[in-house]
Amino acid sequence: MKLLKDMILQKGKVIDDNILKVNSFINHQVDSKLMKEIGLEFANHFKNEEITKVFTIESSGIAPAVMTSYELDVPMIILKKETSSTLNNDIYQAKIKSFTKNKIYNLTLSKDYISSNDRILIIDDFLANGEAAKGAIKIIEDAGATVAGIGIVIEKSFQSGRAYLDNLGYNVYSLARIKSLKENNIEFVD
Amino acid sequence: MKLLKDMILQKGKVIDDNILKVNSFINHQVDSKLMKEIGLEFANHFKNEEITKVFTIESSGIAPAVMTSYELDVPMIILKKETSSTLNNDIYQAKIKSFTKNKIYNLTLSKDYISSNDRILIIDDFLANGEAAKGAIKIIEDAGATVAGIGIVIEKSFQSGRAYLDNLGYNVYSLARIKSLKENNIEFVD
Repeated sequence: MKLLKDMILQKGKVIDDNILKVNSFINHQVDSKLMKEIGLEFANHFKNEEITKVFTIESSGIAPAVMTSYELDVPMIILKKETSSTLNNDIYQAKIKSFTKNKIYNLTLSKDYISSNDRILIIDDFLANGEAAKGAIKIIEDAGATVAGIGIVIEKSFQSGRAYLDNLGYNVYSLARIKSLKENNIEFVD
Repeated sequence: MKLLKDMILQKGKVIDDNILKVNSFINHQVDSKLMKEIGLEFANHFKNEEITKVFTIESSGIAPAVMTSYELDVPMIILKKETSSTLNNDIYQAKIKSFTKNKIYNLTLSKDYISSNDRILIIDDFLANGEAAKGAIKIIEDAGATVAGIGIVIEKSFQSGRAYLDNLGYNVYSLARIKSLKENNIEFVD
């Protein structure tokens, strides 16, 4: 997605070989016109997948996910990051590790908002090691529903998440794929 | 806002005299068409306030806030809830207490995303005791910027937040004002 890649080149900040900060337009300050374009792009890409729900993980996936769900005319569900696990028959949970925050979260979904007929599109802002995506997939598959697609705003292709998801056969679409951040230089996958 | 009030009556769940759950269309599952209508309503109401930025607090304010910021054609800024306070000259912080979660958070904003010329619209999903709004106001005023308006999706008018903000002269607009939740009955302010 050219608009996004241009903004990453103009406004992204390479912190080290692994970290790209996009706080000025995606994570902290949010460019809502860009989010709208991202929503249109995901909706168009996955339009034949018979998506019934858009899932995202709180909190920086919410803005692109709500725009996508609006365009697809399906509900968005926010998987909550709980710090403790809960024994409760009304919810699904999956443990995920946040490498950026060095914390374990329990992704949590009420059973009210998923059924085995659902075809779900997972939307998130970043794909790195794929921890959040793996957690969302586990919850969806525990519920007997289908992961119909995974839409990622920025993929760090040099980390393991994308290869992992590809190997399992998931339909992944990333709007910007970053090959390398070495030497303070942002290089995209062709 | 009639659409919202109708949905609250149909889908809201009164848990006790103080708690209304709207997990099926606002907080956990999110109705993105409703969020669009909410964005249009806030943008229309505050259109003459020369808003330069929309602020919200992670995470359930993000969906209505991104729609509002899209309609107003200004950036959205997500105030982060940090669990620890940080000594750092690059950020503003304000301590807030979450009564629902019984936790203290440090609302956090990078100084990069506010200037003294900003006229800011705060958007949040709920107004109860006004803790989150007070924290956002403190950050905005610490930066020398102006709180040009406060847009709330659901106000629990029987709690102290609205009166507090009115007394200080802030321009508050709530789309649904709940007078009482007693006896499992949702009653709106006229």
